[in-house]
Amino acid sequence: MVNNRSFDPHVAVELLRELRHLTADESGAQRVAFTETWSAARNWFQSKLVGFPFEYHRDAAGNHWVTLKGISDRVLIIGSHLDSVPNGGWLDGALGVLAGYAILYHFAISKVTPAVTIRLVDWADEEGARFGRSLFGSSAFAGTHSIEADRGRTDKTGVSLESALAEIEIDIDKIGEASNERANARGYLELHIEQGPVLEKLGLSLGAVTGTKGVERHVIVFRGQEAHSGSTPMTLRRDALAAAAKLALEIRQIAMKHVDAVCTMGSLKTYPGIVTAVVGRAEATLDQRDLDAHVLAHMLQEAKTASDRFAAEEGCSVEWCRIWNIEPLPFHPELIELCEEAIREITGASYRLPSGPLHDAAEVSRLGIPTAMMFVQSLGGISHNCIEDTREADLLLALRAFHLLTVKTILWIASQPD
Amino acid sequence: MVNNRSFDPHVAVELLRELRHLTADESGAQRVAFTETWSAARNWFQSKLVGFPFEYHRDAAGNHWVTLKGISDRVLIIGSHLDSVPNGGWLDGALGVLAGYAILYHFAISKVTPAVTIRLVDWADEEGARFGRSLFGSSAFAGTHSIEADRGRTDKTGVSLESALAEIEIDIDKIGEASNERANARGYLELHIEQGPVLEKLGLSLGAVTGTKGVERHVIVFRGQEAHSGSTPMTLRRDALAAAAKLALEIRQIAMKHVDAVCTMGSLKTYPGIVTAVVGRAEATLDQRDLDAHVLAHMLQEAKTASDRFAAEEGCSVEWCRIWNIEPLPFHPELIELCEEAIREITGASYRLPSGPLHDAAEVSRLGIPTAMMFVQSLGGISHNCIEDTREADLLLALRAFHLLTVKTILWIASQPD
Repeated sequence: MVNNRSFDPHVAVELLRELRHLTADESGAQRVAFTETWSAARNWFQSKLVGFPFEYHRDAAGNHWVTLKGISDRVLIIGSHLDSVPNGGWLDGALGVLAGYAILYHFAISKVTPAVTIRLVDWADEEGARFGRSLFGSSAFAGTHSIEADRGRTDKTGVSLESALAEIEIDIDKIGEASNERANARGYLELHIEQGPVLEKLGLSLGAVTGTKGVERHVIVFRGQEAHSGSTPMTLRRDALAAAAKLALEIRQIAMKHVDAVCTMGSLKTYPGIVTAVVGRAEATLDQRDLDAHVLAHMLQEAKTASDRFAAEEGCSVEWCRIWNIEPLPFHPELIELCEEAIREITGASYRLPSGPLHDAAEVSRLGIPTAMMFVQSLGGISHNCIEDTREADLLLALRAFHLLTVKTILWIASQPD
Repeated sequence: MVNNRSFDPHVAVELLRELRHLTADESGAQRVAFTETWSAARNWFQSKLVGFPFEYHRDAAGNHWVTLKGISDRVLIIGSHLDSVPNGGWLDGALGVLAGYAILYHFAISKVTPAVTIRLVDWADEEGARFGRSLFGSSAFAGTHSIEADRGRTDKTGVSLESALAEIEIDIDKIGEASNERANARGYLELHIEQGPVLEKLGLSLGAVTGTKGVERHVIVFRGQEAHSGSTPMTLRRDALAAAAKLALEIRQIAMKHVDAVCTMGSLKTYPGIVTAVVGRAEATLDQRDLDAHVLAHMLQEAKTASDRFAAEEGCSVEWCRIWNIEPLPFHPELIELCEEAIREITGASYRLPSGPLHDAAEVSRLGIPTAMMFVQSLGGISHNCIEDTREADLLLALRAFHLLTVKTILWIASQPD
């Protein structure tokens, strides 16, 4: 079917370099959604479609869709995002979009009509870097968007998300119409850099992603008694920092009981926060993630119980306030299997791992559309930073394996009963 | 000598109430040095001297001196400060000045010439609340002032200390001339509220202060690796907060090995300080105090060693930077003894304790002038706050005991060899 000429992974790598040249400065990629640089990136991408038999349009939420009609109306979606964080990396998101492009390009120049229709989507504002709302476009697609909350969002300068949308002629009240794009969708694939150190530590190039972890995100406030650091004996203190410090260490023990679980205290603030006063109030954030909903719930309960114990030990009170949570979104078992197969056939080894970071794939999987993701090794596990990088050899392996996964998935979709 | 009529402690308590009425609002005392309310307080105090045989003048650093000539030229200084922190308490500093006033008043109305000359000093800017330079007047007296550093000091609105001094006709270059006031000084006494919870917890009204603790104050910076909270496994993290949390707990163990020692982590800042990132940098402050210089040095070394160990355990680096330090300043053994005697004679019990907070008495003691301080219980150990308070019965006991200490000290000074 696609064997008349072999798939060329260099197409995507060269385009990635071109995109970097166009949209990065010395601080990194600047393709923040709803900025001029982002529009420039998308216009550049659109220019690469000219002369090919692709249908192209933007949906009601600003997602860009490129369609190559197949023999069947059944649709395989390949997606990722061109937007980046400020001072971001060259691969985060862009790799997946350009991998999809390379696959469409390969079908087009081979003049092969695929067995199923292939659609490439560049999701709008995966990062949420400007307005704090990540997965903007894919959540509109999935129907988990929140227009009333989104209407109130502003950037650092006070510009509203609503007016930024209006500027590119998107009506915030209509973003839910992006769900029309779901028609006939029978599978979703995404290639992404790992953004973590696991594959590098194992000496592996690629991994099959088992799903995105559920997340519990809380603010925890310990209240003790502000007191003079010179006149208050150690035994008479109610030190809110001590209680928070105990929790900062305990959450690590809680996470370590489970394979792949993580717990992070990313922020700790002390009040009054001066050198001469015992801390009267300590505000910590806690981010807990696991792919198993039961494990996640159990870790949350353990952290709460521990915080109560530490507060009591230190004569403090403790209060929890949920910032946000999302359930674990496991991917499709058969597609994970195909992904692992493709990786094994290309690299000789394979590995499964959950994704800690969220991805648009989670929103798609939530709809019941069979979903899989492939990760490629990130050097140093570093992302969201101008030094984000992946060895060229690994990029080429990733593109080959992802192409193979696409072929396998097309056959899988075609073979499914109605 | 002073027995023709008995000492009346109510004089001081009534004046304290008058001063509160004049200089406090609903948020507390507002006698911040180099403000109008402070000047109003000092003018009010000066008005209370009219009609008595007191010499009165201001020295080159803005300290106010009230002198009652005695039979001998040997001088006993009684001192404290009328300035307060913003939203401060009614007793912190003012109690000591008005206790001294009540004693001078008693000599004057009894028409008794004391055996030695008694001088009452209202030190300028003990708190350093506006310009961040505490013990301003007493350090000029002691010769430990620092004109070049002080010249650069500004308040929150950018007004310089130098210009605030000029406004009340004090030349910053001449503040060292306050040392002229040392002439013939043979003893220094100060009554102050404890500003801590020790006496209250012991059910005691008064305590004899053994000296002011030495202080070591540092900023400690742990540097690990900022990393994604979702994609970075627990075992691959270099979490700067974990290292800092271990130190926050360890410093308490270090302090508890020593009676009266204190170690405080008053501020802990996390960077980038966001819910989704492992902390790459944690900045902590450490304040350590003890009356024994060896203990203080040992505690500092122990904390440094512990921080190295925690940094190594967490794959972090650690750096220490001294903010400030002062040596312990023990008071005069014979005057401490007299202070304890006076307390025992008035209350039937006595107790010695070091002062964690610094006081002007420390600057005087540093000069070798025999010094003692008496503490009176603070309710709830709270100070620098509008709810700062002491039971009236305790205030009256304090004033009686301090008067008795003054009488004992006059006799002690008079009996000293030349």
